Amino acid sequence: MSRSRISQVVVTPVAFGDPPLLNVVGVHQPYALRAIVEVHTDSGLLGLGETYADEAHLARLSAVAEVLPGHDPYDLHGLRRLVTDVLGRETGGGGASFGGMLDVDSAVDTVYSPFEVACLDLQGHEAGVPVSDLLGGAVRDRVPFSGYLFHKWAGHPGLPDDAWGEALTPDQLVTQARRMVDGWGFGSLKLKGGVFHPDRECEAIEALRDTFPDLPLRLDPNGAWTPSTSLRAADRLAGVVEYLEDPTPGIRGMAEVAAGTDVPLATNMCVIAMEHLPPAIAQGAVQVVLSDHHLWGGLKKSALLGGITDVWGLGLSMHSNSHLGVSLAAMVHLAAATPNLTYACDTHYPWKTEDVITDGVLSFEGGSVAVPTTPGLGVTLDRDRLGELHEQYLSCGVRRREDTVYMRSIHPDFEVNTSRW
Amino acid sequence: MSRSRISQVVVTPVAFGDPPLLNVVGVHQPYALRAIVEVHTDSGLLGLGETYADEAHLARLSAVAEVLPGHDPYDLHGLRRLVTDVLGRETGGGGASFGGMLDVDSAVDTVYSPFEVACLDLQGHEAGVPVSDLLGGAVRDRVPFSGYLFHKWAGHPGLPDDAWGEALTPDQLVTQARRMVDGWGFGSLKLKGGVFHPDRECEAIEALRDTFPDLPLRLDPNGAWTPSTSLRAADRLAGVVEYLEDPTPGIRGMAEVAAGTDVPLATNMCVIAMEHLPPAIAQGAVQVVLSDHHLWGGLKKSALLGGITDVWGLGLSMHSNSHLGVSLAAMVHLAAATPNLTYACDTHYPWKTEDVITDGVLSFEGGSVAVPTTPGLGVTLDRDRLGELHEQYLSCGVRRREDTVYMRSIHPDFEVNTSRW
Repeated sequence: MSRSRISQVVVTPVAFGDPPLLNVVGVHQPYALRAIVEVHTDSGLLGLGETYADEAHLARLSAVAEVLPGHDPYDLHGLRRLVTDVLGRETGGGGASFGGMLDVDSAVDTVYSPFEVACLDLQGHEAGVPVSDLLGGAVRDRVPFSGYLFHKWAGHPGLPDDAWGEALTPDQLVTQARRMVDGWGFGSLKLKGGVFHPDRECEAIEALRDTFPDLPLRLDPNGAWTPSTSLRAADRLAGVVEYLEDPTPGIRGMAEVAAGTDVPLATNMCVIAMEHLPPAIAQGAVQVVLSDHHLWGGLKKSALLGGITDVWGLGLSMHSNSHLGVSLAAMVHLAAATPNLTYACDTHYPWKTEDVITDGVLSFEGGSVAVPTTPGLGVTLDRDRLGELHEQYLSCGVRRREDTVYMRSIHPDFEVNTSRW
Repeated sequence: MSRSRISQVVVTPVAFGDPPLLNVVGVHQPYALRAIVEVHTDSGLLGLGETYADEAHLARLSAVAEVLPGHDPYDLHGLRRLVTDVLGRETGGGGASFGGMLDVDSAVDTVYSPFEVACLDLQGHEAGVPVSDLLGGAVRDRVPFSGYLFHKWAGHPGLPDDAWGEALTPDQLVTQARRMVDGWGFGSLKLKGGVFHPDRECEAIEALRDTFPDLPLRLDPNGAWTPSTSLRAADRLAGVVEYLEDPTPGIRGMAEVAAGTDVPLATNMCVIAMEHLPPAIAQGAVQVVLSDHHLWGGLKKSALLGGITDVWGLGLSMHSNSHLGVSLAAMVHLAAATPNLTYACDTHYPWKTEDVITDGVLSFEGGSVAVPTTPGLGVTLDRDRLGELHEQYLSCGVRRREDTVYMRSIHPDFEVNTSRW
């Protein structure tokens, strides 16, 4: 049996409309960027991946894409070595699309990730099994997601209001939540905080609790608070939130908060790479880690994170940036095949109106997505849509995620809210 | 594409001649036992696994084998759930063939392991790729092993001397090592200790160092020493051994020794399951963990162990019990696909003269075994040999590994050496 080899790799940057969602560093730009990675084999198969699309990241993706032809899609260790070699000494962070919220020491994990996902998609097609099977098999046939609530403006300045409308008050957030729950069936809710004073955000959580007495709630201020403010908020929200995500920045700060409250602390900021686990665990800094295959270096490394959290008795949830359907498919397969991923996953999916995949596979019912059972990721690239979103990328002018820069173009005095309160 | 399902499972206990190798709990019996697990699919494929064959373990294997037909070989999470369900409350250790040296809290990992290996063998056959590819790809095309030296009698009492002859003195061990190195090409050596006074075993290591100045050396007293004796020995052997394996029992004892020496401490006794990692790491008890897919719950869980040791900066080596070719194949695939497994692996393979697989695939050259590149494990069951070794199992009378019982049948006053010196 002759082994198939990678014959061609295409990286296509795309842009899709994104509402003015507010966060600790500013506001989402009118367009979110993603890169769609196509990995073709000489046997005629196509594997898909999706990742960030900041210019620096695109340059790294292209450099890897160039040397991939001839590589065996099963050789993931070799792929990682290849990415490491290509990036060479140039492994600084900042290329990934975190809008200034995160910094990783090395770009290897984020650059490797979409190629790994595409190779697993290929392996699935080759073997005739879904990606979840390559990760040990689905332990659930549907993956639950949480409704992701944002403070937001009615629309981008200078553009018509979007369909969601303004959400700056607790009441408006409740209306947004109602729409999420009614339209998508979400069985839990997450509020992106760090935008207003902690009291106001706690008030919003309490308003959500009153309106949805049975839904688990999460609040994520993205490190906007000091440890003492975090402790006061934890006291106020004890028994109300299932976890508090990154109330304060850094492992040390989180450990200080964790020592003073029984409210579980989650993170996607102070533990975002394997090397953060030993100090975070030693200091008891967090009780729930958010996985994210884009950030943690692919699906297999995210499965390793799942195993580690299981061994150390930590909770496991899943983080999301603005994303399209290829990422959603990968997230669903990973979540389905991770036994201890018992929290509903985050997703920005409801906030977008465009995609690059064919409709019909990944639909939300009761807040969850059925795990595709066809080979690979189970999603199909719609080339017309890909072309349109690429054209949009070319014409929209956005080249990197810059929430703070965009916010300051509207409110010149805006200061990032990290540890502000 | 219709998915293949498990149609039949056959568990065959076998016995093969084993020399009188001495250790902390006694001496190897004339026959070592293994169970060969065949997992057949309705698509006509056969997957192989190999494990211990104590009676209690065989009973558990049979109970699982009975319920496996109909299961999907890709559904490893489901397989584990099934094993857990079948074993139910009866998860006590003691079934596995450790001769009294180890105890595990749960039999799930050891019972699950051979079925998982057989399912991965099947997946490899199904997809047309070697098992190493299912584990992320081989990072090395040959896997180096260490020559495993034992104190031993010339032969089993009442039977003719074996081909290796007596090894009770440092000189005799050097002769044994010479034979291992000349015959198999081993590039490193391990001495099983815990049999004689620590001074004599240190002397043996020093004699090996004099004779083989360039070979890395290991000494494994299997917990025969107190912490203070361990520290004295570590002092004597600093710069001579690459690591000292389980000088003293228990995480606490090992931590005490580790705090007082720079000689790396390895273990296959105090860290033999995932739940031992957090306390061992927190206490700094060990620097090298020995993986063993039979004990740790299969190849994927051993890969998880590899990932964990990598994240925490621990060394990784590989343990061996007396085993046959199916196990060796699995060990080779696992080792090949584990990037941070940089120590030569242990193996008892040179000590046996019989096998159940067809010759020619797993041959030692320069102390290493080439990773099979054919689908699955890459080894073929020889049904004549399997039949002969099963007949030998039926006729030999050994039903469980009992090093101490056998030793006492010869030396009635023998006491287990744990913490003796």
